[in-house]
Amino acid sequence: MDYLNRIGMKAKTASKELAQLSGAQKNEILALAAEALLSNTDSILNENGIDYKNAQEAGVKASFLDRLKLSAERIEDMANGLTSLTLLGDPVGDAEKFKTLDNGLMVGKQRVPLGVVALIYEARPNVTSDAFGICFKTGNAVILRGGKEAFHSNLAIVSVFRSVLKNCGYDENMIQMVEDTSRETAEALMKLNKYIDVLIPRGGAALINSVKENSSVPVIETGVGNCHIYVDDSASFDMAREIIVNAKTQRPGVCNALEKVLIHKDIAEEFLPIICDALKEKGVQLRGDFEAKSICPDMVTATEEDWFTEYLDLIIAIKIVNDIGEAIEHIGTYSSGHSEAIITNNYANSRRFLAEVDSAAVYVNASTRFTDGAQFGLGAEIGISTQKLHARGPMGLEEMTSVKYIIYGSGQVRP
Amino acid sequence: MDYLNRIGMKAKTASKELAQLSGAQKNEILALAAEALLSNTDSILNENGIDYKNAQEAGVKASFLDRLKLSAERIEDMANGLTSLTLLGDPVGDAEKFKTLDNGLMVGKQRVPLGVVALIYEARPNVTSDAFGICFKTGNAVILRGGKEAFHSNLAIVSVFRSVLKNCGYDENMIQMVEDTSRETAEALMKLNKYIDVLIPRGGAALINSVKENSSVPVIETGVGNCHIYVDDSASFDMAREIIVNAKTQRPGVCNALEKVLIHKDIAEEFLPIICDALKEKGVQLRGDFEAKSICPDMVTATEEDWFTEYLDLIIAIKIVNDIGEAIEHIGTYSSGHSEAIITNNYANSRRFLAEVDSAAVYVNASTRFTDGAQFGLGAEIGISTQKLHARGPMGLEEMTSVKYIIYGSGQVRP
Repeated sequence: MDYLNRIGMKAKTASKELAQLSGAQKNEILALAAEALLSNTDSILNENGIDYKNAQEAGVKASFLDRLKLSAERIEDMANGLTSLTLLGDPVGDAEKFKTLDNGLMVGKQRVPLGVVALIYEARPNVTSDAFGICFKTGNAVILRGGKEAFHSNLAIVSVFRSVLKNCGYDENMIQMVEDTSRETAEALMKLNKYIDVLIPRGGAALINSVKENSSVPVIETGVGNCHIYVDDSASFDMAREIIVNAKTQRPGVCNALEKVLIHKDIAEEFLPIICDALKEKGVQLRGDFEAKSICPDMVTATEEDWFTEYLDLIIAIKIVNDIGEAIEHIGTYSSGHSEAIITNNYANSRRFLAEVDSAAVYVNASTRFTDGAQFGLGAEIGISTQKLHARGPMGLEEMTSVKYIIYGSGQVRP
Repeated sequence: MDYLNRIGMKAKTASKELAQLSGAQKNEILALAAEALLSNTDSILNENGIDYKNAQEAGVKASFLDRLKLSAERIEDMANGLTSLTLLGDPVGDAEKFKTLDNGLMVGKQRVPLGVVALIYEARPNVTSDAFGICFKTGNAVILRGGKEAFHSNLAIVSVFRSVLKNCGYDENMIQMVEDTSRETAEALMKLNKYIDVLIPRGGAALINSVKENSSVPVIETGVGNCHIYVDDSASFDMAREIIVNAKTQRPGVCNALEKVLIHKDIAEEFLPIICDALKEKGVQLRGDFEAKSICPDMVTATEEDWFTEYLDLIIAIKIVNDIGEAIEHIGTYSSGHSEAIITNNYANSRRFLAEVDSAAVYVNASTRFTDGAQFGLGAEIGISTQKLHARGPMGLEEMTSVKYIIYGSGQVRP
């Protein structure tokens, strides 16, 4: 596709200029971009109003409309996000692990931008601003392909940033938006490995899977959750109840929310009624396996499909397990590898759970809801990786960089 | 494909047992595997003889036969490779960057195996042993798909390792070989993302590109070179000559060998004849652009295709450039991003070259031939990554691992 090739080429060119900017230069642009968002609030809200009206007329779900809708306050949040990036250190140029070899060569690794980053995402206009901020801060040119429902909002936000870059004498193609929101163009974008160094999909499981299957650009998979909490026989019931209720109900629509509870059989009879009552009180629909249902008969029977499902809703499935080994095996089979927790007071079991559960974040005695860049103190986050290559868990600034070896010699040749 | 699915499933199961082995247990197996290679030298050589005879009859190139052929000495080298791994530290389980958050949660990152690693490679049987060693040391189950020409050699080597594992009571599927060497099976392997965490192709550009285009498993691209040396106007002629001759001729068939020389126009008249004579003396065929040919007329004219080509042979192409900026631009356009060097005595130019050249290894005043795990002191190497995601440059043990966040709590919930 000529259209996409031109975008790719322009991004690659812009990325070379961007890679050489100093931290101070980048912070200046981020501060100006934040100001420009605020001073353009009215026009952005106006464009967002068009998107909102179109979506309303198309009859989409209320939760979708909520994610799409901007307000003066949400724009202020976006601006604050950009400003807060100026307070973080710039990882680009950091160098480490320098060794001087026996032949006198000094060899080390230096952090460099990835180059050109592309994002494919759904209808949340704030992602447009957040993604630009993190990519720009880390010296990466960015190509944004947002959902068609947010087209006018995204275009307005991207135009604001491009104007700031242009006014400062920089290449405005450091941020570009794919204005053709067709499926074909999205698929062609996934094949643009000549220009794009990394592709990050952000959205539901269907989007992530489509990108994973079709992309010849290296992908970082993000954000599909199906989080588990295992309640060990040594668990404090109070702690287990508080954590489970928090992880399930504090914000049920996000990827680090709890979806499954596994309970040790020796405490099931006593603990299950406690947790069922607490969850029902919060309006959670309960599903359970045969053993759980035999203790709390008013549950829905959980099917095989339930154990794989990320509900993102006030629904939970509960299973009784024989021991920690069965819990770990169940998690290994059904989890998406996002976040899992054990509630226990048994030292050996805490160690075993941490060692054997192979997910991006593994907790002892805490809510899975903490898997988040801001909570972990990364300062900013572009997504939560559930793959093992390059980055795993919340991705902050460092995860948006690569390294290169730099070598200082004085005429060395290989014998 | 049922056949591959079974291999994948078995590898995933074995990887879970392998991930829990201690460094001492893994070293014991590696030592036994080295011994077993030596004590099975005769039978391995016998099988290799079959491959060699078949290849000879098929009329393959001498360099191919050389890579395929094993000897008692080469098997000893393979065994020594495994033994030397026992002397290196085990990165699995190392943890770092622990922070205690304001709410008391202690959060850090722990190194874990990647899981299941697959290798697709050509006809070098020593890769079979090296790949097993590095993957096993780092706790990864490995699926090997070598070239069909080395089928009998690979099967013999893999059988030796599987016997060692079985005799020690471990799951022998920690190493598996894809015995069906058809192209269709290789392509199906590239789609086995359900079981394989990382796919590493090792071989020529055609193999690497095919994997890159077709794989839905995350790939680490390795080893395609097209290395450049830029001779700045401030360069010592002696140093430049020695480095260029070394980088081109010390071992021309490898990815870190020099392929292109860029010379600053102000020294071309004086330096070009020096370097041409030195290279011709070593039997190197010279190709050049118009300006170079006008100084040394007995060169072949270099075409546009030459600038992209990795010769892997005693051929070199030389271009005269106006300044360091043109050199950096040329490298950015034509290089595969492997290794590049500047020969200079100008401080600012050395800094600029290191900053602006975007390749895995960037040198000042040294031969590109040093881009190698052993040379860089990594102790072992599974390949040289030319991509930016996950690993770049020589990949040692740490590059064969991932991380997970581990979090110690005491009942924390998210407010």
